[in-house]
Amino acid sequence: MKLYYAAHTCALASHIALEDAGAEYSTVRIDFAANEQRSPEYLAINPKGRVPALVTGRGILTETPAMLAFIAQSFPGARLAPLDDPFAFAEVQAFNSYLCATLHVAHAHRMRGTRWADDPAAIEAMKRKVPDSVGACYELIEAKMLRGPWVMGDSYTICDPYLFTVAQWMEGDSIDPSRFPKVNDHRQRMSERAAVRKAIAVQLG
Amino acid sequence: MKLYYAAHTCALASHIALEDAGAEYSTVRIDFAANEQRSPEYLAINPKGRVPALVTGRGILTETPAMLAFIAQSFPGARLAPLDDPFAFAEVQAFNSYLCATLHVAHAHRMRGTRWADDPAAIEAMKRKVPDSVGACYELIEAKMLRGPWVMGDSYTICDPYLFTVAQWMEGDSIDPSRFPKVNDHRQRMSERAAVRKAIAVQLG
Repeated sequence: MKLYYAAHTCALASHIALEDAGAEYSTVRIDFAANEQRSPEYLAINPKGRVPALVTGRGILTETPAMLAFIAQSFPGARLAPLDDPFAFAEVQAFNSYLCATLHVAHAHRMRGTRWADDPAAIEAMKRKVPDSVGACYELIEAKMLRGPWVMGDSYTICDPYLFTVAQWMEGDSIDPSRFPKVNDHRQRMSERAAVRKAIAVQLG
Repeated sequence: MKLYYAAHTCALASHIALEDAGAEYSTVRIDFAANEQRSPEYLAINPKGRVPALVTGRGILTETPAMLAFIAQSFPGARLAPLDDPFAFAEVQAFNSYLCATLHVAHAHRMRGTRWADDPAAIEAMKRKVPDSVGACYELIEAKMLRGPWVMGDSYTICDPYLFTVAQWMEGDSIDPSRFPKVNDHRQRMSERAAVRKAIAVQLG
């Protein structure tokens, strides 16, 4: 498998999960500063012009929640999701969907406002709200969603690399991590895992 | 199971899938006009203050992609997803994640702009971009994603009720359905299915 990623993006979640799974894979860095995600070569891989994308023997996958579930299902021995329990699996997926469609979307209004408005003043107004809108997501995660020690409780799952990945953006979004002790503790413990260190070393190296 | 829904929302997708699955379930309407989704009673069910929510014997699920996969896995006889093929299942999930995190999000900037900005002029600027941003999603779906006759090709899956559901919003988003013949044909064929007719009759009745 081949993972296309860009630094500081949600692609880190799938990268960590591939490490957790013990998968054999290679990585390809896409340079957002050079707008490489819009190159004809990359659009042939992912017509959305986004990362991540995962090239597999069967075809190309996109969308972090789908890729994480795929990695978990493809490497069942790594026990990255409760694969034999549809309800528990749905809880994993609901958490990841919330990160993807609510938290990540709120965050994206800081840097990617042109997706949703053209007026420069509107784009500035979006940026101003990011600490509130992303902060509200962490309030919910801290109070209602993160069970501890891992997201789903005693078992490490594909929710954990995804939460760790988006939590890397807190400071950039002007959110004080100390407001969210459970999220902060989770982030600290994740950062010490070998799989996380390796993925970060590759992506930021 | 008990499905909490509001009319004209993405909850229709799970409602149709429950019908497709032959599930036994009841429904509860949440009145957005009365702001019932923010009532203490409903926040106790779904602290996000959104629909849908699905009460099951094991607990409560939210997030349409997670609920659709749960319904498919809970009723394997209905064959609503390629459950024994992780890659094909991931393709289903990637499609649904795109609807959730990109198309639905773009659409939400027409009515729910206060999630992402406070300035009234910014909220108006967001509304103006919706035909473009949602239209771009349908361009990609029409050209690259909808295989036909169903989203995933010959087999009907949980992608189909979800696409049908969001496509109901096209006119409201000032998108001419005739620009997208494959999506339009899919919508027409979906609207003739008994499960779709029944779910719509309940939700809009």
